[in-house]
Amino acid sequence: MAIAVSVTAQEKTVMHSKNSAISLVVQNNEAGNVQYSITYNGEPVILPSGTGFVFNKPSLRLDSFETIGIDSSANDETWEPVWGEVKSIRNSYKELTYAMADKKGSGIRVNLIFRVFDDGVGFRYEFPQQEKLGHFIIGDELTGFQLTADHTAFWIPGDYDSNEYLYNTTRLSAVDATKAAAKEPDIALKSLYGPDAVQTPLLLKTDKGIYINIHEAALVNYPVMQLNLDKAHLLLSSHLVPDAAGNKAYLQTPFKTPWRTIIVSNKATDLLASKMILNLNEPSVISDPSWIKPQKFIGMWWEMHVGKATWPKAGGKHGANTGNVMKYIDFAAANGFDGVLVEGWNEGWEDWFGNWKENVFDFVTPYPDYNIDSLSAYAKKKGVRLIMHHETSGSVTNYERHMDTAYRFMLEHGINTVKTGYVGRIIPRGEYHDGQWMVNHFQRVTDKTAHYKIMVDSHESVRPTGLHRTYPNWLASEAARGNEFNNAPALGLRPEHETILPFTRLMGGPMDYTPGYFHFQLNQFDSTRKTRIRTTLAKQLALFVTMYSPLQMAGDLPENYEQFPDAFQFIKDVPVDWDDTKILSAEPGDYVVIARKAKGRADWFAGAVTDENSRSVEFDFNFLDPGYNYQAIIYKDAENANWETNPAAYAIEKKTVTNKTKLSVKLAKGGGAAIALTRLASQGKRR
Amino acid sequence: MAIAVSVTAQEKTVMHSKNSAISLVVQNNEAGNVQYSITYNGEPVILPSGTGFVFNKPSLRLDSFETIGIDSSANDETWEPVWGEVKSIRNSYKELTYAMADKKGSGIRVNLIFRVFDDGVGFRYEFPQQEKLGHFIIGDELTGFQLTADHTAFWIPGDYDSNEYLYNTTRLSAVDATKAAAKEPDIALKSLYGPDAVQTPLLLKTDKGIYINIHEAALVNYPVMQLNLDKAHLLLSSHLVPDAAGNKAYLQTPFKTPWRTIIVSNKATDLLASKMILNLNEPSVISDPSWIKPQKFIGMWWEMHVGKATWPKAGGKHGANTGNVMKYIDFAAANGFDGVLVEGWNEGWEDWFGNWKENVFDFVTPYPDYNIDSLSAYAKKKGVRLIMHHETSGSVTNYERHMDTAYRFMLEHGINTVKTGYVGRIIPRGEYHDGQWMVNHFQRVTDKTAHYKIMVDSHESVRPTGLHRTYPNWLASEAARGNEFNNAPALGLRPEHETILPFTRLMGGPMDYTPGYFHFQLNQFDSTRKTRIRTTLAKQLALFVTMYSPLQMAGDLPENYEQFPDAFQFIKDVPVDWDDTKILSAEPGDYVVIARKAKGRADWFAGAVTDENSRSVEFDFNFLDPGYNYQAIIYKDAENANWETNPAAYAIEKKTVTNKTKLSVKLAKGGGAAIALTRLASQGKRR
Repeated sequence: MAIAVSVTAQEKTVMHSKNSAISLVVQNNEAGNVQYSITYNGEPVILPSGTGFVFNKPSLRLDSFETIGIDSSANDETWEPVWGEVKSIRNSYKELTYAMADKKGSGIRVNLIFRVFDDGVGFRYEFPQQEKLGHFIIGDELTGFQLTADHTAFWIPGDYDSNEYLYNTTRLSAVDATKAAAKEPDIALKSLYGPDAVQTPLLLKTDKGIYINIHEAALVNYPVMQLNLDKAHLLLSSHLVPDAAGNKAYLQTPFKTPWRTIIVSNKATDLLASKMILNLNEPSVISDPSWIKPQKFIGMWWEMHVGKATWPKAGGKHGANTGNVMKYIDFAAANGFDGVLVEGWNEGWEDWFGNWKENVFDFVTPYPDYNIDSLSAYAKKKGVRLIMHHETSGSVTNYERHMDTAYRFMLEHGINTVKTGYVGRIIPRGEYHDGQWMVNHFQRVTDKTAHYKIMVDSHESVRPTGLHRTYPNWLASEAARGNEFNNAPALGLRPEHETILPFTRLMGGPMDYTPGYFHFQLNQFDSTRKTRIRTTLAKQLALFVTMYSPLQMAGDLPENYEQFPDAFQFIKDVPVDWDDTKILSAEPGDYVVIARKAKGRADWFAGAVTDENSRSVEFDFNFLDPGYNYQAIIYKDAENANWETNPAAYAIEKKTVTNKTKLSVKLAKGGGAAIALTRLASQGKRR
Repeated sequence: MAIAVSVTAQEKTVMHSKNSAISLVVQNNEAGNVQYSITYNGEPVILPSGTGFVFNKPSLRLDSFETIGIDSSANDETWEPVWGEVKSIRNSYKELTYAMADKKGSGIRVNLIFRVFDDGVGFRYEFPQQEKLGHFIIGDELTGFQLTADHTAFWIPGDYDSNEYLYNTTRLSAVDATKAAAKEPDIALKSLYGPDAVQTPLLLKTDKGIYINIHEAALVNYPVMQLNLDKAHLLLSSHLVPDAAGNKAYLQTPFKTPWRTIIVSNKATDLLASKMILNLNEPSVISDPSWIKPQKFIGMWWEMHVGKATWPKAGGKHGANTGNVMKYIDFAAANGFDGVLVEGWNEGWEDWFGNWKENVFDFVTPYPDYNIDSLSAYAKKKGVRLIMHHETSGSVTNYERHMDTAYRFMLEHGINTVKTGYVGRIIPRGEYHDGQWMVNHFQRVTDKTAHYKIMVDSHESVRPTGLHRTYPNWLASEAARGNEFNNAPALGLRPEHETILPFTRLMGGPMDYTPGYFHFQLNQFDSTRKTRIRTTLAKQLALFVTMYSPLQMAGDLPENYEQFPDAFQFIKDVPVDWDDTKILSAEPGDYVVIARKAKGRADWFAGAVTDENSRSVEFDFNFLDPGYNYQAIIYKDAENANWETNPAAYAIEKKTVTNKTKLSVKLAKGGGAAIALTRLASQGKRR
């Protein structure tokens, strides 16, 4: 296939996306600096921006190149994810490869590979196998993102160890990571590296209404890219997370870096619907994924957060005892949940946190009051699976020594999903959560669990970059501020939080957000607590739809669900896997309205969430099958609902709707709405 | 038993050794500084010297104490090592415990425990379980060794990663680690930390002829102690090897530090005979050690050093191919060796060194030309064991991930001894060979190999501290400049080297020194090589006796041994395990003469080595059984022998001797002598 590539004398190459919306220009100037720029519908989005590296070994700066070849191609394929928001995904792009050689005489060759999609651009560096470069150590990556103006940014502070910050919405010129982080005493481990530093996925909005998401795809054997901000020039620069020795990455040719991704749209809904990051990842390596199942589950977990129970055995309130967990299994079985997560089941919680202790847990020794054998048998009888918890306490060397034994122990007990945790400072000491070594650790976990046919839900792990296409057993991660932060005494959450996450953190992959709180003042078991949930009940339901994840843990306690059986019905009904998704309307920081079609069924589920403002949102059901009636059960905020003073006030309404129906629903302040749409017999006649 | 302890008003405690030679004084001055001092036969050896710690967490300086109790006791027991230089060891000492509390109000308690032996003093810190101290991080240990004068020191530079330096013999005031290390281009990885830094075991000799060895015993879960030298005050201070974060040790009460050891004697021979360091270690944890066997072996190894063969497969000279190794097995079987070490057998050697590469070897994938299955079977048929080689390249995280599988692979192939290697910079990056993390790694190797009933010979590992009493499957280590350094192009070895090692490195435990070179110019396979062996042939034989090790690898090539079958007979005959040992005469840097009695036999073997000077040494055979004749086969330097110009000239003499015989043997420059003494029928009548 012939691709339109025009090369000028100055080696300026222009490539337009298939829909012509996106244009990429790559150019090698006289100094040998290869720069790229991007326009969207003729509007500059990224001005000419630099590329290159500093190597620590061999010691050189690789930013001046001779172009030794320019190649282009195109691709158009459709693939089916093992699970996801949609049944099939089209991967259509044009590719441009700039083959370059170091102009300064080292003989090193590097290819810069661009893929131009209808909704953005991804590019990566490829170091082919070559005589002049074998092993090398990256000191810095010189990739720039030269912005056009002082956009509005939705950002969290640059930090090597935590991405559990609240989002800040400011002009770029007002970014101050140090100040923002100082307001967050609830984050126990911070590794900030400067005031002008932010993390990706970073969302920008221009004054002309263009949305730009900057992130990366296929982060493999490389550190996380964070971004330095030069406020004077509005230039974002790659900042790779270092290791204990101050190096960034230890590499060997042939090697390909992760893709640097820039998704662009003038429609917030299109940005949310983008599959560019997934498409930039490699196809699944798991040939028979039949054992991988999206799951809805409950957990012996929130009890500990709200002070009803404890992780450690001592003190008389140990949550994970055999009797308690049997009750959870009963509740899960009675209400159709797939699994029960159990935290605090194993020896080691007495001094697990804050000591930088290496030999914390062994992952196979239950507390004496936790009879894992009888519970496994009981769960099996009830048709429920236990979900294993492996908190590493950040002691990853220790976890790696125990992984094989621990995974075999799981399988011996019929458990095939593990929630991993990395709370605390990393061991190897001096490494960070987001450095290359940890990225490789998560890869090792993924590979080894796949070998044992185990699914993974990783917490305090690296934020996702679409790798769930390649490794679909890595179902979800936390890697952002979760719903649990409602219980944090200082900043907690803000009602807007869940309207920003889909544009930022979720662009990389699913999050185990733990929606579904029905009890709002978190002083149920400890009257001194001032913490609370910052949503209405209806919004908690809506999150099951708006916060896509193949793992959804209904976060609250069984007894709290039993208080509201009619509302709980939505949690029981909502699926965790989908054939289709429609982003109905969205604006970051304000609202998100999404409808999804249940996997293998004709039924749809919709959710709408708003920030601290009340607003009406419209559900245009034009995506429903024509000629059918649907029973809509609408879970919405009661008229007088309000996250601050009246969060539990909801109303449930039943209606028959068709694909002609446009339904307006009022969301309370901090509120939401959830809708279950069941297709009825053709022409509205019930069978 | 009542122990004489006199306590003055100033809390000055004096304890004399049972033989009264050693006196220890411990004293808590008004400022609360607890100091100890040591005299030998009334002569000060260590002047009052400080104790204490700097903690990094909690942040405090722990060097001012209230004495809250002083206790004393005594012990006298005799124990039998699994293997060793002697059949049984007497452990007789008096113990003094200073129970102390932080005077500055932290409430932290620490016990200072001294053991006073007839030949020295050991002391350690004990942090008992206590309310005020759980987890803590050591920033510095404040242990001092205040010397009395500017002694002669036998030292190597302080270095976190290497102890493969040549020994320097200078006054303390002339120590310059930086300069000394600069002369050593053959050491690929150096982590020096200053000019006034030396390692232990450190040997000092006073002008009055007192020998002092400073080292440590029972190094467990703690970094190596090196020594800073304050030349102005002749004060040695503990310098603990740091980790990647600059901390020294992560500890949890209850905890006991290693023992700091000071062995003192006016006889060099008594210093060499000291068992104090072994005695300060805990008894063996291996209840059935029947599988642990001292071994004499050969190796597919020197071929690579001298350029006959290569470790990597490529290039046409791969040493570890099936045919070559079969010849080694044949040679071992024909000459009574227990095993054949094979290096370069496994995939990964192509880029194993110098890249700080993590995934180097997997320890289970042989090169395609190495048929480990058939070789295992062949070795078994021939009554020889293969010895496994696990070079980690310093990538210890990688090794730990593969250890279990690798050890099982060994057992599947009938291999129960592993030579480990740690050449190169450590991964976890930022850790050092001698830091706490690596000390714990060696412990993990020891524990895991014991679990699998595997014996260990560790190279580039931490220098020993008598732990082979507790873990007798850790047979030997390198951890010093081995015989292989004769092949190093720059400094190589000096003839005096083997007269210093027994007083320094070997005080902590056995070394895999690889004696037994018969070919002296190392240009056999590469005519451009300028390297050579710095001994005579007779001295190479003597090393099998003077350099005690339960693992002795006859280092040279089979074809070189075949050149000198009569001399080779000594290597075939000499045992590797002993019932008794007599240090006949010794002077560090000059000569060492030792006789040992073969395990379970009436026969003795003796060895004498000298430095660059020729000298006559006397063997007084008064230790032989009275009333018996012994056939002595004396392997000695020929009259015209000389390490530089005529190293291979030797003479073999047979003589009948009794316990009345005194035999004078002349050692050439850089020469030695080895004697095999076979007990004949009583009264000299041959049966």
